[in-house]
Amino acid sequence: MSGYGSHFPNSKKVFVNGSQPGVRVPFREITLSPTHTARGATIENPPVIVYDPSGPWTDPDQNPDVRTGLIPLRQNWIEARGDTEICPERGFVAGDDGVRGTGDREPFPGLVRAKRRAKPGANVSQMHYAKKGIITPEMEFIAIRENLGRDAAAETAYKSATGIKGPRGEGQLGPTNVPNHQHPGRGWSGKLPKFITPEFVRDEVAAGRAIIPANINHPETEPMIIGRNFRVKINANIGNSALASTIEEEVEKMRWSTLWGADTVMDLSTGKNIHDTREWIIRNSSVPIGTVPIYQALKKVGDVPEELTWEIFRDTLIEQAEQGVDYFTIHAGVLLRYVPLTARRACGIVSRGGSIMAKWCLAHHQESFLYTHYREICEIMKTYDVAFSLGDGLRPGAIADANDQAQLGELETLGELTKIAWEYDAQVMIEGPGHVSMQTIAANMEWERECCHEAPFYTLGPLTTDIAPGYDHITSAIGAAIIGWQGCAMLCYVTPKEHLGLPNRDDVKAGVIAYKIAAHAADLAKGFPGAQMHDNAISKARFEFRWQDQFNLSLDPESAIAMHDETLPKESAKTSHFCSMCGPKFCSMKISEDVREMADAAEAPAEIEKAMHEKSEEFKKQGAEIYT
Amino acid sequence: MSGYGSHFPNSKKVFVNGSQPGVRVPFREITLSPTHTARGATIENPPVIVYDPSGPWTDPDQNPDVRTGLIPLRQNWIEARGDTEICPERGFVAGDDGVRGTGDREPFPGLVRAKRRAKPGANVSQMHYAKKGIITPEMEFIAIRENLGRDAAAETAYKSATGIKGPRGEGQLGPTNVPNHQHPGRGWSGKLPKFITPEFVRDEVAAGRAIIPANINHPETEPMIIGRNFRVKINANIGNSALASTIEEEVEKMRWSTLWGADTVMDLSTGKNIHDTREWIIRNSSVPIGTVPIYQALKKVGDVPEELTWEIFRDTLIEQAEQGVDYFTIHAGVLLRYVPLTARRACGIVSRGGSIMAKWCLAHHQESFLYTHYREICEIMKTYDVAFSLGDGLRPGAIADANDQAQLGELETLGELTKIAWEYDAQVMIEGPGHVSMQTIAANMEWERECCHEAPFYTLGPLTTDIAPGYDHITSAIGAAIIGWQGCAMLCYVTPKEHLGLPNRDDVKAGVIAYKIAAHAADLAKGFPGAQMHDNAISKARFEFRWQDQFNLSLDPESAIAMHDETLPKESAKTSHFCSMCGPKFCSMKISEDVREMADAAEAPAEIEKAMHEKSEEFKKQGAEIYT
Repeated sequence: MSGYGSHFPNSKKVFVNGSQPGVRVPFREITLSPTHTARGATIENPPVIVYDPSGPWTDPDQNPDVRTGLIPLRQNWIEARGDTEICPERGFVAGDDGVRGTGDREPFPGLVRAKRRAKPGANVSQMHYAKKGIITPEMEFIAIRENLGRDAAAETAYKSATGIKGPRGEGQLGPTNVPNHQHPGRGWSGKLPKFITPEFVRDEVAAGRAIIPANINHPETEPMIIGRNFRVKINANIGNSALASTIEEEVEKMRWSTLWGADTVMDLSTGKNIHDTREWIIRNSSVPIGTVPIYQALKKVGDVPEELTWEIFRDTLIEQAEQGVDYFTIHAGVLLRYVPLTARRACGIVSRGGSIMAKWCLAHHQESFLYTHYREICEIMKTYDVAFSLGDGLRPGAIADANDQAQLGELETLGELTKIAWEYDAQVMIEGPGHVSMQTIAANMEWERECCHEAPFYTLGPLTTDIAPGYDHITSAIGAAIIGWQGCAMLCYVTPKEHLGLPNRDDVKAGVIAYKIAAHAADLAKGFPGAQMHDNAISKARFEFRWQDQFNLSLDPESAIAMHDETLPKESAKTSHFCSMCGPKFCSMKISEDVREMADAAEAPAEIEKAMHEKSEEFKKQGAEIYT
Repeated sequence: MSGYGSHFPNSKKVFVNGSQPGVRVPFREITLSPTHTARGATIENPPVIVYDPSGPWTDPDQNPDVRTGLIPLRQNWIEARGDTEICPERGFVAGDDGVRGTGDREPFPGLVRAKRRAKPGANVSQMHYAKKGIITPEMEFIAIRENLGRDAAAETAYKSATGIKGPRGEGQLGPTNVPNHQHPGRGWSGKLPKFITPEFVRDEVAAGRAIIPANINHPETEPMIIGRNFRVKINANIGNSALASTIEEEVEKMRWSTLWGADTVMDLSTGKNIHDTREWIIRNSSVPIGTVPIYQALKKVGDVPEELTWEIFRDTLIEQAEQGVDYFTIHAGVLLRYVPLTARRACGIVSRGGSIMAKWCLAHHQESFLYTHYREICEIMKTYDVAFSLGDGLRPGAIADANDQAQLGELETLGELTKIAWEYDAQVMIEGPGHVSMQTIAANMEWERECCHEAPFYTLGPLTTDIAPGYDHITSAIGAAIIGWQGCAMLCYVTPKEHLGLPNRDDVKAGVIAYKIAAHAADLAKGFPGAQMHDNAISKARFEFRWQDQFNLSLDPESAIAMHDETLPKESAKTSHFCSMCGPKFCSMKISEDVREMADAAEAPAEIEKAMHEKSEEFKKQGAEIYT
């Protein structure tokens, strides 16, 4: 019994073991049907293995219960390092759900593990281990995961088994056909190893070019990495607002978004039950969870930004770090001097956190406590291994506002803050825009890379035009694909509801699929090892009219099947050599089969010439119907 | 009474007259509500004018009938040139609907005008007039249309009236903020005039850099232009197949696609009633209609490619040219020597026309009649002013097949054919791929520009990955936006049904909207004069919580409204200063209003400093709730 239900037919969960204890890396394996050649032979097609962030929810052997939570995969690794201790638990205190909290709590009913923190003087960040030369189980897990479980030998076997021959169509495992340097634009300029080794993972984390969000109080995570030299990742934002949604709906959105491929999830709740909602989500999530702690802090002071204090904010960080939040968005770059630079913008400040901090700065006429207490924040981050997601509070919210002094000033400050965080071995990624038209997207990536010392970039889109509310998953997927190609490490999805309302389940799926497309298109353009295997497999299925395989290999098989069946619902159409677009007489792929068959029979040019002439005669004689 | 129904609330058709008789250019004008400032002032917002290819169908003064057809806007212009004559009508002959035609005709019941052709020795192509230095009414119409009816004086007034001030947010009319040369990539390298003049239109057409598809037997068209120095255009493919659709459905798809913004429509019918379907479409279409004549020719020989002959093909061209088809896709670049180069591809030949011609070449072992009779085709083109759309019969249908020798060999041949067509002053555009991953899209544009002497490029997508059937409007909108920015003149849409079935009405709309996004994003990135006005207007509406204006300014108001109303259906929510995404307490835009107000009050930095301090005191004193 597959754990993927009807969503991914012919898919099953498979695991690859690493060398360190407990390193057991999950993938989704898609079984394919064989190829039946025109000459009557049957050739097996090897299964296709894809990256799978859906976690134990799709593992029929685990069958988790949302009221119990997930098994803590990393618990033994964390304890074995011997650098953590059980700490007195802060837990839930009155006011965590806001001064106007309803008192109507829904605490997580499952196991609540003892909270851990670094022993005094210790540092438990993956960056810290990496700098010391340690390859953690998390790093080995990631190396296997990024390679889709293949090693060099398996790779060669796989390549030869796929059967796509010839100079262009071969099962590419290295960069795609035309190297980046042939591209007139700059393109992606990193250096990809042919295989991702655990050592490479370690070195990238040590250099700050990649992060592994892995709070020691979130041992349920399946390790993943965010960095320009790895697969491009996507984040799905969920969370309630004062006007909509429940805990149950939000937990379901988390599961739903990871089923379709979200690599991390941000809980951006600003409504009721903010503490408990987060607890339910974290205990049930195998992907890293990010938050914007200022949202909760603001609720604690009755939604009045100017009443925020460092003490309240600090307490919120501890509260959330204990729960297991893996990365915090911190808008510490919103400096007093940048705020007036936003006044003449078309859309002012569009980041919620940014506007809260701007208001605080104005009210107090001083730099924010995020900036003045930044080193204390770094201490907290390293104590639990929470990664910084340095927020772009002044990101442009309109094409007219792109690349202005407010945005670029803040970016420079984020670069300074990155350096400081690294003094503490705290992991850092940098958030980016927003609304940016295409011609400056590459420049945005370049500015970030230079200002922020190659810390990974994590962007919201960017949206490439403002004029399509209702379709901003598309306006932004264009920008996301381009910036991913240019080296952006993680793409924060935008749903069709952006600018219009809180996304529901369907919107979440639409956003995730659009961003899986953008991320994969970026991986192809970067020439990420193995990325094109998936394309090659689906193209081969398409050419051979293996309809069911084409559906099963797609990002959303259910939708592909439904669309196909609208016009050709009969089961027999799944084996026919055409679809309703062209009908049986006009299918170009069918004719191509014939061309290929001929060329297969005659390898050398002279023979091709001869064969073509023969074929010509044969055609004329037989008057045969080639479409059968 | 608006002619746009509920699809575009607050929109009405407006016209701008030119200097030549009958030049009356239609636009869609969107009326906006006034801005109410925090200080109680009311400031009017000027209406926004957008390019509108929807034709007389949205003109309440015309109220056309699909059984009568449209008024022939260009008839007088064509006759006034005195270079055409009424010709003996070929009309419908048995077999036009295929040798297996049902005999169940549905002839167009409206007026059938006498057919015209060039007088002996004359040449009626817009390129011919352009080369002679003539500015036709079509060219003047286009200049006004590309400028959205504005001249330099109106421009300045409009700019000052929009009220968005400051260095970044001003109502841009020239290139967007950061010039292309600041972009690390190559970007678009053309030279845009600040205003499109009739002379500029003429010169671009004369140089072959742009085409005006305008068959003299399709006088119903509202002139439009396809070229890299103009707005990026989009094409919608419609047409039945042997398995699906009726004449009525196809005419409705044509109207529907132009309502949402399709600039041209291709009738790719391959099913029954192919002649009459086309007649109904052309007589009711104000946008240029393209076809692939080989489809009909193939039906005339019973769907057996090898039985195609020059005579049958020639007769089909005459038949369609008389009906008024504005551009023909001709796959004359599929040469014998290129066919074997496709044999080892992952997906072979995916162009229907390309595969038909490849099969013909194989069967006869000689170059196709499209190639050997190419000069005769040119004669026909100039006689009716049908433009060439030189087909990329060997375009890649999989990422694995991109940029191979078959594709590039054909492209070179298309370049040679372009030169020949220009000897006849026949207008030419070049079709392009297909499936291409992002890093080589710019190179594809560059290759086309160089090989084909700057003839306009017209691409299908390209799709940037193969793995998302059901979402290929998105995989391809990414590629389309990029290649449009790089200079591609027209983007052929791809619908969500691509690879799965014949698109229906909903798919057509989804495809058109995705491509309007791509084309507009490209116009922004190119810095097309005035393109950003639309973005600026919607961003201003968004910032000022003019919800209804935000909806009305969007590409698809109905969907935007429906999404907003899912969570906040009440009418009062249309004036509230928040939406359900953040709720009333967390709206960043609301806080930004306050920041702006402060900065407006204090212009100079010193004053800002002072004001900020005062504001700080004021905030503390009043404890005021800023979100009201």
